[in-house]
Amino acid sequence: MIIASPNDTHARLIEEASEAGKHIFCEKPLALDLPSADAALAAVGKSGVKLQVGFQRRFDPGFRKARSVIQEGELGQVELIVSTTRDPKPPSLEFMRRSGGLFPDTLIHDLDCVRFLSGLEAVAVYATASTMFLPGGAEEGFVDTAVTSLRLETGALAVITNSLRAAYGYEVATEALGEKGKVTVGQEQQTGVRRYRADGVWNDHVDHFLDRFREAYLEELTHFVECVALDRQPEVSGEDGRAALVLALLAARSYREGRPLSVDEASRR
Amino acid sequence: MIIASPNDTHARLIEEASEAGKHIFCEKPLALDLPSADAALAAVGKSGVKLQVGFQRRFDPGFRKARSVIQEGELGQVELIVSTTRDPKPPSLEFMRRSGGLFPDTLIHDLDCVRFLSGLEAVAVYATASTMFLPGGAEEGFVDTAVTSLRLETGALAVITNSLRAAYGYEVATEALGEKGKVTVGQEQQTGVRRYRADGVWNDHVDHFLDRFREAYLEELTHFVECVALDRQPEVSGEDGRAALVLALLAARSYREGRPLSVDEASRR
Amino acid sequence: MIIASPNDTHARLIEEASEAGKHIFCEKPLALDLPSADAALAAVGKSGVKLQVGFQRRFDPGFRKARSVIQEGELGQVELIVSTTRDPKPPSLEFMRRSGGLFPDTLIHDLDCVRFLSGLEAVAVYATASTMFLPGGAEEGFVDTAVTSLRLETGALAVITNSLRAAYGYEVATEALGEKGKVTVGQEQQTGVRRYRADGVWNDHVDHFLDRFREAYLEELTHFVECVALDRQPEVSGEDGRAALVLALLAARSYREGRPLSVDEASRR
Amino acid sequence: MIIASPNDTHARLIEEASEAGKHIFCEKPLALDLPSADAALAAVGKSGVKLQVGFQRRFDPGFRKARSVIQEGELGQVELIVSTTRDPKPPSLEFMRRSGGLFPDTLIHDLDCVRFLSGLEAVAVYATASTMFLPGGAEEGFVDTAVTSLRLETGALAVITNSLRAAYGYEVATEALGEKGKVTVGQEQQTGVRRYRADGVWNDHVDHFLDRFREAYLEELTHFVECVALDRQPEVSGEDGRAALVLALLAARSYREGRPLSVDEASRR
Repeated sequence: MIIASPNDTHARLIEEASEAGKHIFCEKPLALDLPSADAALAAVGKSGVKLQVGFQRRFDPGFRKARSVIQEGELGQVELIVSTTRDPKPPSLEFMRRSGGLFPDTLIHDLDCVRFLSGLEAVAVYATASTMFLPGGAEEGFVDTAVTSLRLETGALAVITNSLRAAYGYEVATEALGEKGKVTVGQEQQTGVRRYRADGVWNDHVDHFLDRFREAYLEELTHFVECVALDRQPEVSGEDGRAALVLALLAARSYREGRPLSVDEASRR
Repeated sequence: MIIASPNDTHARLIEEASEAGKHIFCEKPLALDLPSADAALAAVGKSGVKLQVGFQRRFDPGFRKARSVIQEGELGQVELIVSTTRDPKPPSLEFMRRSGGLFPDTLIHDLDCVRFLSGLEAVAVYATASTMFLPGGAEEGFVDTAVTSLRLETGALAVITNSLRAAYGYEVATEALGEKGKVTVGQEQQTGVRRYRADGVWNDHVDHFLDRFREAYLEELTHFVECVALDRQPEVSGEDGRAALVLALLAARSYREGRPLSVDEASRR
Repeated sequence: MIIASPNDTHARLIEEASEAGKHIFCEKPLALDLPSADAALAAVGKSGVKLQVGFQRRFDPGFRKARSVIQEGELGQVELIVSTTRDPKPPSLEFMRRSGGLFPDTLIHDLDCVRFLSGLEAVAVYATASTMFLPGGAEEGFVDTAVTSLRLETGALAVITNSLRAAYGYEVATEALGEKGKVTVGQEQQTGVRRYRADGVWNDHVDHFLDRFREAYLEELTHFVECVALDRQPEVSGEDGRAALVLALLAARSYREGRPLSVDEASRR
Repeated sequence: MIIASPNDTHARLIEEASEAGKHIFCEKPLALDLPSADAALAAVGKSGVKLQVGFQRRFDPGFRKARSVIQEGELGQVELIVSTTRDPKPPSLEFMRRSGGLFPDTLIHDLDCVRFLSGLEAVAVYATASTMFLPGGAEEGFVDTAVTSLRLETGALAVITNSLRAAYGYEVATEALGEKGKVTVGQEQQTGVRRYRADGVWNDHVDHFLDRFREAYLEELTHFVECVALDRQPEVSGEDGRAALVLALLAARSYREGRPLSVDEASRR
């Protein structure tokens, strides 16, 4: 079963699918709060169905290559990860009410990416954020621009910037710096055309996540089908979904409370 | 019917398919000589089947965009086109014997590209070429490196460089220069990963034509199917196939004879 | 008088030069604490000499162009600035003891850059940092890796990442995102040479701040000489030097105290 | 003595300077015909003064690096060189009458570059050219767009494209392909600023040869001064100036006669 419904239905649908004995591919996030996520994971555990969470970047050839570069030690110890996700346009308030907003819906991709690339867990989170342009966002507590910094278990740092609007298109860019260098993953152009004119040199920009991650979306579903067919565990587990959710919820709370939070606090909630 | 067999079988298969009343998608080149091409086109004309020639670059989003930039006048009058095609590795001599070699098999893509981008016909051709690395190539008259220059009907120039070996991968790059600027089409990287190390900054390179033109191959076949289903004429006609073949054969002859040739001479052959 | 001595001597030398009636070009930072900076600025004010602070990025053609793009409204309201400075190698502990370390010596460039590009003042600062590789750094409280986030007066955010080691060279990169797009300033390559090999595509990287900012250093000194000769006020004032120092000291304190700080607190110190 | 006067005065001034016993830095070309060049070189030889010809690309860090990459064997045997020079705007007819036009004035840089990078001599030349936009050019036989192909002594090929107008600025780009890969030299951007907007991503372009080759011009004069001061032979000799001139004149004649010419023919003139 593929769950790609509004975020606030994910946990309940996972439970129902588990009870029906159906293997589950569920879009991120697992849930909008930790108790619901834990209930969903418990149902999965009890039923023994497979669960894959939709962190498609893990199937993007660029992110996969970056991870293998890091895991094979080419960078040495990781010291800093910088991750950027920017959407072309903010969604409607209606959408945000069901998605949970920037932290659980957008930031969560970057949080998973930090875990995936570094193989490290975060120990502290601090987020600062603003509502700069989202109509009606401020009144309901939805932010559109955020900077989230993480301290990882080795002392390495990570920082994530998110924006719900980028006039030039859809942007995902990541860099990981280590003792021996850095690796970056990014894709700016869509077509490979450049135009040289009296007013300068122009190229286009990827403008939609479906263009940026077309191959990754196909690969993640292929992986899910293979896991079901061959009785393997998906590479992106429910635990991965939970770990990123913990950090996303913690970032939201850090922003609300105006202080850094340790990950233990959040997990204990 | 899709003809993707060795080049020396194309013309005969087109004739047979025409006689069988089957619509034809045929890989370039139409034939390895002009009489065979003309016989094939005559068979197609007589039977009324549709014929699309496999110049897939015409379906690449980059080349399509470049053409529309040019046709809409953004460059003004076209003055110069530079086109590059390099294969990662030379094929076997066995393959070359059936493909006709660099001129009809590789250069023909660039020749079509010049026609497609500029909307102009060539009036003269000069080619110089070498056998620098193809084992046994020199003995059989097969070249592996070539520079072909064209004069177009407006006085504009075009130049094409081809090589059957590029240690770094597969490369197709094109630029069109006009009075108001230039447009380039190219794609160097495969994954969007860059690695920054003490010994320099590194990225990968597209290494196969299937990677470079994956989308174009899908689009050209989709176009063929649509043309058949909707009874439309394919955008890449038999005449396009013939026009590029005339130039490719002329380039080969120019190289052999060591002199520039006018296109009339060739067409009259 | 040009002051390019160790940071811990700047404030005293400014006072002495002021008393001697000499116009002053002083490398950043003005001082390593606010009272010293204020005493130095008071001496300058009393003597009427000119003071220019060495934020050379303000004279880099790229940063100047980015600022004018922003100030002319091409981006609309600024929403987010991301600034990166990475040195090739950490300095000695001896050097750090006199420079004051990463916050007043390195971060201060980025802090000035945020002010220069956005024309906005910061209202809150949070820094997280680590000592990942600096030998003996942890014992003396010197960090080598830091992430500093700022909230600006409009609600816009800024984030700065610093590292004292980048195996691939010297890196300064900045992006400013606004409602209508973004502008980036960066320079990766030193020579414009790229090498395409079986193992990938290679280019070099700028490896020293003197290479990256050669033109800016010349321009800032030319500006200083012109200001003296033509009796003009330097574009980079003592107040600019103080404003960046306030933020740098605040970042250091935020890191030590593990909490975000408002700029008022710092200024009141 | 530095000779940077109109091209048609170079040979005579070289003779006069030689007779006066002055060391000579002379801009390219040595002369506009071979007898004048030979007379000038004879005068230099007789007087024993030093002569350096102004092929400044040989002092550009990028071209120097590319040459060392090639000479150290990183590419293996060179198979193909592609060189491009485009000026922003055509000069006046008055200027062209004294400069000798595109072949001896512009192409000659690329010809020297082919010799410098490959270390190889050309054995045959073919040029095709057009007058597409130069007002009054056609009447006087001046071309504005040209494609010149060379066969080198090893069978390697080279091709050069020149245009006297590029709406986007000044462009010099070179690639050398060999058995183990390729090396490219080029520089597109002037400032390192990129602007990302709803209508695309924009950067500037180098717009003048003084911007592109500022460092090279300084280096070549420094080299000349050192050669004089330290009694060394300049790296760019009169023979280099003559060899490029032979090819430039041959290209012009090939264009006029509409046929490829062997280098022996030209040298014998």
